Amino acid sequence: MAFGWIDEQATARRRAGLVRTLRPRPADSPLLDLAGNDYLGLARHPEVTEAAAAAARTWGGGSTGSRLVTGTTDLHTELERELAAFCGFEAALVFSSGYAANLAAVTALAPHGSLIVSDAGNHASLIDGCRLARGTTQVVPHADADAVRKALGAHDGPAVVVSDTVFSVDGDAAPLAELARACREHGAGLVVDDAHGLGVLGDGGRGAPYAAGLAGAADVVATVTLSKSLGSQGGAVLGPARVVDHLVNTARTFIFDTGLAPAAAGAALAALRLLRREPHRAARVREAAAGLHARLTAAGLEAVRPDAAVVSVRAPSPEAAVGWAAACRAAGVAVGCFRPPSVPDGVSRLRLTARADLTREQLDRAVRVIVGVRP
Amino acid sequence: MAFGWIDEQATARRRAGLVRTLRPRPADSPLLDLAGNDYLGLARHPEVTEAAAAAARTWGGGSTGSRLVTGTTDLHTELERELAAFCGFEAALVFSSGYAANLAAVTALAPHGSLIVSDAGNHASLIDGCRLARGTTQVVPHADADAVRKALGAHDGPAVVVSDTVFSVDGDAAPLAELARACREHGAGLVVDDAHGLGVLGDGGRGAPYAAGLAGAADVVATVTLSKSLGSQGGAVLGPARVVDHLVNTARTFIFDTGLAPAAAGAALAALRLLRREPHRAARVREAAAGLHARLTAAGLEAVRPDAAVVSVRAPSPEAAVGWAAACRAAGVAVGCFRPPSVPDGVSRLRLTARADLTREQLDRAVRVIVGVRP
Repeated sequence: MAFGWIDEQATARRRAGLVRTLRPRPADSPLLDLAGNDYLGLARHPEVTEAAAAAARTWGGGSTGSRLVTGTTDLHTELERELAAFCGFEAALVFSSGYAANLAAVTALAPHGSLIVSDAGNHASLIDGCRLARGTTQVVPHADADAVRKALGAHDGPAVVVSDTVFSVDGDAAPLAELARACREHGAGLVVDDAHGLGVLGDGGRGAPYAAGLAGAADVVATVTLSKSLGSQGGAVLGPARVVDHLVNTARTFIFDTGLAPAAAGAALAALRLLRREPHRAARVREAAAGLHARLTAAGLEAVRPDAAVVSVRAPSPEAAVGWAAACRAAGVAVGCFRPPSVPDGVSRLRLTARADLTREQLDRAVRVIVGVRP
Repeated sequence: MAFGWIDEQATARRRAGLVRTLRPRPADSPLLDLAGNDYLGLARHPEVTEAAAAAARTWGGGSTGSRLVTGTTDLHTELERELAAFCGFEAALVFSSGYAANLAAVTALAPHGSLIVSDAGNHASLIDGCRLARGTTQVVPHADADAVRKALGAHDGPAVVVSDTVFSVDGDAAPLAELARACREHGAGLVVDDAHGLGVLGDGGRGAPYAAGLAGAADVVATVTLSKSLGSQGGAVLGPARVVDHLVNTARTFIFDTGLAPAAAGAALAALRLLRREPHRAARVREAAAGLHARLTAAGLEAVRPDAAVVSVRAPSPEAAVGWAAACRAAGVAVGCFRPPSVPDGVSRLRLTARADLTREQLDRAVRVIVGVRP
């Protein structure tokens, strides 16, 4: 029977304690949120939600077509211009998701005969980009610039190095300056996913490439999401104008996807303007993450020192992680729980995210709960 | 130098007359739109835009995380329930785009060792799904159920047949009933992309699988977009509950993507309810497309008889197609223009889309302009 094999996989998942289920939330959830990626606390900021509402009224519920047909409005162009300027890049191109932006950047910049050097800890969307690209992928050990240099040295022809700037699972940063040096020694391009860096790292939240002095370089391309610090939905590729032109002409997830909904473009633009006006939000989220880490480790938990807003805490097993997260939730604190196959090393953890708008009292409560119900 | 090869490709594109450029539109464009995919004329319907605005205010500018972490709201669940019920399926799962929904459906349902039989005219997102899947893909001639049967007969093990229900480029329909028969003879699953069928085909716009008596079958999975007839953004997979559970647990573009923005979910839900209340919209768009086709062919143009809302008109060359579309635009009518590499057969065409809310006068004007400025 068609799809019969699905049931065997479902049984195996149940036995391994790895079943995932959706947990819909109400609009007025009483939980303290340390699980979402709304790093700057802007997703529900009135300026952001009113901008979403106004954009829907002015432009419609959807963009009505591919960006190349009817799906590009003046609003998309405005967002692209301001996003590029803020992050220090020449041009930007907005997508319906960060996933789509990553597929576009990697596939369009790694043609047949090229080499892609990809960090072992990269996000699923970068990995899928490598798998879709016509070039050949070499996976290198996590955050290892020497391994990158070696891989580039052994290849003749176009090459790109692909890495997250901040890795989603452990919240650790890539050695960007070293990666850029390795790329330049070999004439390779550098493609970095700054999903967890935008709004958090760099002067006023301009992102990891800006912080590393790489923004606007001719050989550097960054991708970002509009769905984390900017409290909306969508993604973007930032880079030289000729790279953006190349994506417009060749990237399948740009050409064959409907343009981002106006409400999402409007919300992201409003959040960007808010961040420009209130640059302290970036420093605040980093302080909150550092504080969270310091207090959890002081209490004896094993956590990775955060380079941005994500604090990763190790759990002894998938079952223990699930139980721990459920106990936190029962005590009023929502935390993320990463298990295989979402974790490259197979180690389950709680994934906590700091926010710029967390109060001291909220942080106290979160630490008390997480430590109190530890397995 | 990094990315140096891009310039050579750009030069080649310029020489071939295949450069694509973005053309941002204002909110109050005076053009008559025969290019977008807003088939039912709902993208700017006040009920739809107000629902988008209300959802942004109630739920925020973004969903704040993966659907498996914080990105599932009660609103997402409500949309999934109503969408599944309307289209006649047991369950639905909403994605940030139709592209992501297609990548999910194909990759999750074609494991290692399985066969994917894929129509040569399939949409880019289905093709990318095939390329990402662990199964082996066999491309069969367009709309050829015998070729599908033959491919299935030569394979031992799990298999899926993948096809658009209405093909984007020419607007022709797949032989769904025959494909389903071929699948059942061989115990294969059928995965169909109803992006251009939902809201247009079937009783009250319930879609092509419903029209073919296939909705709700244990061996049939459909994908839809929320960005065409439903005037919003996003996509969904419709199918048996156990297939949807399987996607929740394994589909990378579900697990590793931020959930659809609340405004888009709200807009799509409002459009769905409107369509349920005003089922004549589906018949109206089909009539408009048939009328458009009849009059263009009566005037001597070569056009494909539309099976849904898309009317495809052949152009003698890419340059002629671009010139023709530009002349239409100069005369106040926006039309789509498909050129290589967006067309699998290399034939350039104007792509016209009918809408349920086109008036007789607007159709008259469109035909007059398109015929009047023909190359």
